[in-house]
Amino acid sequence: MPQEHRSTTPDPFDWIDERHERRRRAGLLRSLRPRPADSSLLDLAGNDYLGLTRHPEVVAAARDAVRRWGAGATGSRLVTGTTELHTELEAELADFCGFEAALVFSSGYAANLAAVTALTDRGTQVVSDAANHASLIDGCRLSRATTVVVPHAAPDAVRKTLDDFDGRALVVTDAVFSVDGDAAPLGELATVCRERGAALLVDEAHSLGVLGDGGRGALHAAGLAGSPGAVATVTLSKALGAQGGAVLGPARVIGHLVNTARTFVFDTGLAPAATGAALAALRLLRGEAARAARVRAVARELHARLTAAGLEAAPPDAAVVSVRAPSPQAAVRWAADCRDAGVAVGCFRPPSVPDGVSRLRLTARADLTDDQLDTAVAVVTRTAPHASRPGDASAPPPPEGPRRGR
Amino acid sequence: MPQEHRSTTPDPFDWIDERHERRRRAGLLRSLRPRPADSSLLDLAGNDYLGLTRHPEVVAAARDAVRRWGAGATGSRLVTGTTELHTELEAELADFCGFEAALVFSSGYAANLAAVTALTDRGTQVVSDAANHASLIDGCRLSRATTVVVPHAAPDAVRKTLDDFDGRALVVTDAVFSVDGDAAPLGELATVCRERGAALLVDEAHSLGVLGDGGRGALHAAGLAGSPGAVATVTLSKALGAQGGAVLGPARVIGHLVNTARTFVFDTGLAPAATGAALAALRLLRGEAARAARVRAVARELHARLTAAGLEAAPPDAAVVSVRAPSPQAAVRWAADCRDAGVAVGCFRPPSVPDGVSRLRLTARADLTDDQLDTAVAVVTRTAPHASRPGDASAPPPPEGPRRGR
Ligand SMILES: Cc1ncc(COP(=O)(O)O)c(C=O)c1O
Ligand SMILES: Cc1ncc(COP(=O)(O)O)c(C=O)c1O
Repeated sequence: MPQEHRSTTPDPFDWIDERHERRRRAGLLRSLRPRPADSSLLDLAGNDYLGLTRHPEVVAAARDAVRRWGAGATGSRLVTGTTELHTELEAELADFCGFEAALVFSSGYAANLAAVTALTDRGTQVVSDAANHASLIDGCRLSRATTVVVPHAAPDAVRKTLDDFDGRALVVTDAVFSVDGDAAPLGELATVCRERGAALLVDEAHSLGVLGDGGRGALHAAGLAGSPGAVATVTLSKALGAQGGAVLGPARVIGHLVNTARTFVFDTGLAPAATGAALAALRLLRGEAARAARVRAVARELHARLTAAGLEAAPPDAAVVSVRAPSPQAAVRWAADCRDAGVAVGCFRPPSVPDGVSRLRLTARADLTDDQLDTAVAVVTRTAPHASRPGDASAPPPPEGPRRGR
Repeated sequence: MPQEHRSTTPDPFDWIDERHERRRRAGLLRSLRPRPADSSLLDLAGNDYLGLTRHPEVVAAARDAVRRWGAGATGSRLVTGTTELHTELEAELADFCGFEAALVFSSGYAANLAAVTALTDRGTQVVSDAANHASLIDGCRLSRATTVVVPHAAPDAVRKTLDDFDGRALVVTDAVFSVDGDAAPLGELATVCRERGAALLVDEAHSLGVLGDGGRGALHAAGLAGSPGAVATVTLSKALGAQGGAVLGPARVIGHLVNTARTFVFDTGLAPAATGAALAALRLLRGEAARAARVRAVARELHARLTAAGLEAAPPDAAVVSVRAPSPQAAVRWAADCRDAGVAVGCFRPPSVPDGVSRLRLTARADLTDDQLDTAVAVVTRTAPHASRPGDASAPPPPEGPRRGR
């Protein structure tokens, strides 16, 4: 209960009301929708790509970790916050993905902030894809480096930018872009980096567990895992079904992060439950290589059926299928209609998509059944707004602009 | 296992070796020390101030949350990542601490980044205490505001800074400073803010569960909780024994964060285990008001005995007792000697203490027994380095500089 206060002076937060009103008028107000534990919704909105977050072995490992280690890490990883469980997860993650070493953070967001800031300094040039995730962008903002934002998925623009610069450089990209689910041209980017002596930082948030041999990620798929100039970040919160993030790379890079990364040094270690759950999920992944193949097949099937029904979506490179909506308001209504029909879908609007194009974001899961896929396609198609409705040839084209964004 | 690579070009991470060497020579290399689940060390290093991280009810709640909700939140709080458990924790946290509303984040670090960035924009002036935590500093760097760093704990300097400025302003401070454990002059800061129409953001990471009636925090203790211009951030990773963070404030501030805070919108929700554990810890706190009083008493006792034995430490305002060491090398050796004698203590060196003064950081716990306290005092005193050793009147004075830092 708030303590009582007399208000005699102007309220320093009055300015918020006007922002609220502006957002409301634009149809961009967001609100939280708490879900119950036994939700009956068919989930095509979350990032639990492999269906592991409720897997019995993952749940058991999380519970066991709490019993053995307690509910929290109790301090910074440099003080009391490193348990043997963290070290075990780091060794197995590095080994699985093909890197020398790994370092676990409390979130993927924190891992990205750490990687960008610790691998750059005032003299560095960062070359960042225009559609990179917010956490990479914040890493660029936090760093003291000069950041050049290049057009999305354009290795030639990266090459040109590097050619115009002499000092140390870091090229930064999502492996799979979070909104549209398209893959970065990693092979070409790595060639450019190698020729120019630049380092390459790749965010594998949406590719770990999905792309590469058995889900080893996009760098592994491209034969680039463990190469001297490559660093990967991953999240433990998507395909691994838990929480947290990690940076993977050469041992000296990891040692450098331990010593200098502020979101490592000044943050409490990842909780034992999440650490144990991610480790169990990783072991399942290693044991069942078909999981990664299955989620990709489900995504391709989902895309094929939705486009066959007349909806507009790019072919998925991983687990994310992004479907265009004519306006933010239409996207919100579409998502609400899906939910009313029992299917949860993601709805991305500005400012999450600064290109201005709102869309539904559907995620494939390795454990979706054929029946569930049928249901999902039927519901998304049936509830499509006028301008996206199958067969409506008179619909206006979607607004122009770069196709992807964050 | 790293994939194989031929190295034909210069390695873009060669620069790291020179940094490593410089750090090694200065005695500032950090390394991780994984702890086993059954460590026999007496812990005076962690931030589990109330001894709740292994409390049976907290452990049971974390395990139950995993069973019911799974190992992860599966998505952003705005998509699938808000469970009813999050909402419950938010309501009880706000109520306990005396605020209108609360919003849970994946870490205290993320909560601080969110609060500073979302409550400021290009025209805002942020007035930040020189000893603030890294996460608040990073929030200032990420924001587009102009930041003025004022001397530590100096309300007059804050007043002067605000007087020189006309627009919107946000005063930012730790409630209890993490390295030295001293409390901020919240009453005076609030008066200055009220007079000047500025908002006040207070990081209660080390005061929640420790200061205020039953552990309601420093703002509550000062009668400022729930006042229109005050916002608090807390961590769930210290006194509450779990992981995560939260922002507490007026409902419109919380609504604004939901809509605009990047570390909320673009981050996976806090895992159910940590959410459930923090909620259980909060309920214990509410039921047993003596816990907060006990940790403060233990800290005062620890300080009294150490200074009586001749060591140099400021009187603690909360649970942290900071003891000066003559050099980084001596601090490291001192901490190692304590550990060899069975007592884990924190050791803070540059760059965690940019004032250049290394120290041991001891944390009181509500569940420390008198015997454990005896042991801790005996070990810390006996292992003290020459210049800090009780009775050594010829020891040189510690290096000068601002007394606290981050
Ligand atoms: C591409 C990308 N990187 C990083 C993150 C952040 O990871 P986490 O949610 O684990 O903090 C996300 C999503 O949350 C993401 O989509
Ligand atoms: C003052 C202060 N604020 C914020 C944080 C960050 O909280 P968390 O570790 O939960 O991310 C910490 C320590 O970790 C802290 O000491």
